[in-house]
Amino acid sequence: MVRDELDLAEYEARMDRPVRIKIPELQRDDRLKHVIFSDQFTADTLEEMANIADMIRVLAKSRDGYRFLLDLLPHKRAMLYFTQPSTRTFLSFMAACQILGITCNEVRDPSTSSETKGESRFDSIRTFSSYFDVIIMRSVHSRLAECCAYLMNDLEDFNHRSVPIVNGGAGADEHPSQALLDIYTLQRTFQFESTIDSRRRLGFDALCSDTRYTGLTRGLSGKVYGFCGDIGRGRTVRSLANLLSLYPNVTMVFLAPHHPKLSLKPELRRKLVDRGVKVHEVESLEDQIDGVPAIEMLDSLYMTRIQREHDDPADAQAFAQIDFSRYCLTPQLVSRMKEYAAILHPFPRDKNFGEIPPEIDNDHRAMYFRQARNGMWIRAALLAYLFGVDRQISRYFQTEYTETHDYNEDVL
Amino acid sequence: MVRDELDLAEYEARMDRPVRIKIPELQRDDRLKHVIFSDQFTADTLEEMANIADMIRVLAKSRDGYRFLLDLLPHKRAMLYFTQPSTRTFLSFMAACQILGITCNEVRDPSTSSETKGESRFDSIRTFSSYFDVIIMRSVHSRLAECCAYLMNDLEDFNHRSVPIVNGGAGADEHPSQALLDIYTLQRTFQFESTIDSRRRLGFDALCSDTRYTGLTRGLSGKVYGFCGDIGRGRTVRSLANLLSLYPNVTMVFLAPHHPKLSLKPELRRKLVDRGVKVHEVESLEDQIDGVPAIEMLDSLYMTRIQREHDDPADAQAFAQIDFSRYCLTPQLVSRMKEYAAILHPFPRDKNFGEIPPEIDNDHRAMYFRQARNGMWIRAALLAYLFGVDRQISRYFQTEYTETHDYNEDVL
Amino acid sequence: MVRDELDLAEYEARMDRPVRIKIPELQRDDRLKHVIFSDQFTADTLEEMANIADMIRVLAKSRDGYRFLLDLLPHKRAMLYFTQPSTRTFLSFMAACQILGITCNEVRDPSTSSETKGESRFDSIRTFSSYFDVIIMRSVHSRLAECCAYLMNDLEDFNHRSVPIVNGGAGADEHPSQALLDIYTLQRTFQFESTIDSRRRLGFDALCSDTRYTGLTRGLSGKVYGFCGDIGRGRTVRSLANLLSLYPNVTMVFLAPHHPKLSLKPELRRKLVDRGVKVHEVESLEDQIDGVPAIEMLDSLYMTRIQREHDDPADAQAFAQIDFSRYCLTPQLVSRMKEYAAILHPFPRDKNFGEIPPEIDNDHRAMYFRQARNGMWIRAALLAYLFGVDRQISRYFQTEYTETHDYNEDVL
Repeated sequence: MVRDELDLAEYEARMDRPVRIKIPELQRDDRLKHVIFSDQFTADTLEEMANIADMIRVLAKSRDGYRFLLDLLPHKRAMLYFTQPSTRTFLSFMAACQILGITCNEVRDPSTSSETKGESRFDSIRTFSSYFDVIIMRSVHSRLAECCAYLMNDLEDFNHRSVPIVNGGAGADEHPSQALLDIYTLQRTFQFESTIDSRRRLGFDALCSDTRYTGLTRGLSGKVYGFCGDIGRGRTVRSLANLLSLYPNVTMVFLAPHHPKLSLKPELRRKLVDRGVKVHEVESLEDQIDGVPAIEMLDSLYMTRIQREHDDPADAQAFAQIDFSRYCLTPQLVSRMKEYAAILHPFPRDKNFGEIPPEIDNDHRAMYFRQARNGMWIRAALLAYLFGVDRQISRYFQTEYTETHDYNEDVL
Repeated sequence: MVRDELDLAEYEARMDRPVRIKIPELQRDDRLKHVIFSDQFTADTLEEMANIADMIRVLAKSRDGYRFLLDLLPHKRAMLYFTQPSTRTFLSFMAACQILGITCNEVRDPSTSSETKGESRFDSIRTFSSYFDVIIMRSVHSRLAECCAYLMNDLEDFNHRSVPIVNGGAGADEHPSQALLDIYTLQRTFQFESTIDSRRRLGFDALCSDTRYTGLTRGLSGKVYGFCGDIGRGRTVRSLANLLSLYPNVTMVFLAPHHPKLSLKPELRRKLVDRGVKVHEVESLEDQIDGVPAIEMLDSLYMTRIQREHDDPADAQAFAQIDFSRYCLTPQLVSRMKEYAAILHPFPRDKNFGEIPPEIDNDHRAMYFRQARNGMWIRAALLAYLFGVDRQISRYFQTEYTETHDYNEDVL
Repeated sequence: MVRDELDLAEYEARMDRPVRIKIPELQRDDRLKHVIFSDQFTADTLEEMANIADMIRVLAKSRDGYRFLLDLLPHKRAMLYFTQPSTRTFLSFMAACQILGITCNEVRDPSTSSETKGESRFDSIRTFSSYFDVIIMRSVHSRLAECCAYLMNDLEDFNHRSVPIVNGGAGADEHPSQALLDIYTLQRTFQFESTIDSRRRLGFDALCSDTRYTGLTRGLSGKVYGFCGDIGRGRTVRSLANLLSLYPNVTMVFLAPHHPKLSLKPELRRKLVDRGVKVHEVESLEDQIDGVPAIEMLDSLYMTRIQREHDDPADAQAFAQIDFSRYCLTPQLVSRMKEYAAILHPFPRDKNFGEIPPEIDNDHRAMYFRQARNGMWIRAALLAYLFGVDRQISRYFQTEYTETHDYNEDVL
């Protein structure tokens, strides 16, 4: 692959500002205009997105509903500019577009492009904005999507054509649509509605009457969220923890080796604590917290792979001392988890490291493949929202679907 | 290209069973569920597929018919997972999907995927099954498609989402959709209906009244099928011969060098003979069989290229002794063939080897480009069948098309 | 990339004929059948294409109009066979297809194809013509598209399936769709209708009443066209100059270094002069012509990048003497241009050479991004024309759009 150089100097001053200053520039009239940071989502937005996604997946199950969806945005064309390898995010954005009738185009290899003739990246992006109606991008350059959003804003100021920029995962930094789908999977799980999404053998009432689960409530508040593995380098952990901290009365348990590269970063810890999150850090799934083994107290467990490709040779010796097997699940550990707990993983999982061995895949707590499919629905919701057809979806849904539909039984 | 490693150990026991034991697992209620082996096709299925394909191509000729087709499966998304290079199969599956309104997505290079991060192939496949509704795959791993079908069956057993797997040509082994299109081309030819597909200058009745062709019948039974060139290593020859042996009173002539790598394999010979096929083996198109030169007795001639890329250095000396020019057609040879005989080739042909020189392309017996286009229609038929819209096509066809339509005159 | 060899010998005699002899073969009943040379366009065709493009872009702005367009050609499938790197042309053809409902397929890397198995290029092309309804191609082989058009004509003669070939830019030679979009951009500019396309601050009447612009007329006739930079090697310059010479009373100013590789080729000069064009050659934007600095007399300025990738080592010393900075625009130079003048560039521009620094992008004379978007509309027009739905578009447009629509105010 061609070396993917980039000069972002022009945007440096704007990039250096705190995120909260930037957020208003990425909105239009209180709605998201570009999707760059997971910090752009509020609890209200998250609720809204989940609702749209829920409606879309129900509509997609009937012939008429599907046709309604396909007919929403056939006049829109998306550019998926993915110069960093990705399968899952790429394909689920493709599928999400297709569900709404959006036509997809892709550029994956900058070496086939005019950049070999000295074209600047921003000329390429502006060209895309000439032909397409939204640009979804993933790049090794962690700030490229942000800069492109500024470029679009500048074009708008000069009355030029401008389109929404969606960050499809930038470098080691931000991956807002992953955060959305992680949250959405937890929202579905803790709705305790679908027998699929929570795979519970028992209904919510039965669970509540179980003495072990006294006080169980619906929703994301008041739950205990575990994160296991490569906490320090995992952008998905950071984003998800951030968003979960928007909910009241949340406990988080971080299970990671005691090493500055791998364990919870002090800044994130501070931010979470400031927002009222109860934070625990332990070094193994069996370590006790207030006398209870971590594995038994979790309402959800977010597993991650150890990102060896980001290892620094300077850490080799320290890493060699770590017993990484403590960050791998086993069927025995899973069997000790709460009946209704959800196991998530941003995927890909590492078959060599084995943080989740395949034997666990058929356990009813394993939600990670479900999570991948949720990604498609929530991305469709995000695109519907960006193109402003979310209200149209609501109206159609309310007209066509009455309570007599048992639409929670969505097997597929 | 990245080395495409794969561990199929988990499925070994199931792969080792005889095909006839496997076939029921690839069906659902007497219909094909996955398409892995050409042995899955019965004479009835082949008839059914040809009928669907015939209807689709007629429908595609009128504006209303085309719209009917496009509106059949717009809510379905196909994944074409083609990690082994292919143009023809790939593009004709794409076109086939598009004819039915199915949206296509592709993954061609595993190096752009998460497998570089240690993901197992089966996690990738299961991810595809989360976003798409059918997976059409070609891989260097000859058994990957088979294993994926088992994976899908296992998912189904656990009430997980599962989608049909279609083998788009696996290694040196199986290529069922090629077998389908080869058979379909012969079915069209020996219908003696379309002036295009049999390119006959004379109608069926005129042919029958020709003393040379006394006793000529419509259909695949009772014909003499020639196969020329790389018989031993040609998977398409094996599959086609296999399927033709389902028809009564068939003669087959294999024209190949006398070398264990290149000539008819004893197992295949035995199987054909067991099924009642009369089998002849000769070393040149002019060799005589019962006093008649082979070239003159054939009803069809299936040409193949010599697959030099599979040559084993150990055979170099023996191969150097072979006069390969005897496996090349010439205009002079073609002129000696029966008036209505069809020349087929699975393509690509080798311009350097010259098994079919371009001078022959305009002979009315040359059916190989027609065969390529047939591939698109029969693949559309296969997909229509897999998604269960074949009956819908029949119903529409019967309502809209009466015998007054001269729909056999399909020029295109 | 695999070396892209090609044997065009078979077509040599036909290629060697003068273009005017070839043109009738590329037509059918006075309409374009294949699009290979920019010389195929007459002033009438150019007018027609611009009209179709104008209608399409207006229709695309309303929901109903867009649906009408999408419903024109959903039964057509295009093959974009782009073995030479390209982003802009490729993507804008994709978008153009999509606007009309045409499904797109692409082959970009010949190494993934059967040509690695000895297949001839023409077998590949004929295969494409089996599955698709138009082939749009860009190749390093400057004459491949031309030969493919002959192949298709030959197939037609034999009553085989044949499809239109569109040259998407062949080698250093011809790029007819680029010429179309360049002309279209100038047509829009000198209509003086849209506030966008001419970005004028003043209306046409106000401009005319300005003493500096006395005698200003609408349309391409009677204007002064500048071309700056790599004149000798720029195929886009050659094509555009050629087409502009179809209009009466035109002046052209070529601004290029005095070097046989870079300056106006004598053949082109002669051709232009023969057609009545007033031709000036100068070496800098400030050089005077009849006492007026070139920059101040231009109605449009077509900038180009210096194609260093085509440099011949033999010219290194001569090139080292040239002050290339004289072929770069500056904001100061732009401010001296006519108020209504248009700056064009075929793009990509070279950020290292800096022929148009980004500071100029927001000047109202900068039309180069607009030009890129025009490329999408005019290519859609070309495809609509090739598939014969242009009259259908006119009829719909005339029925639906009355003069009360202020459809020139197309912001997007």
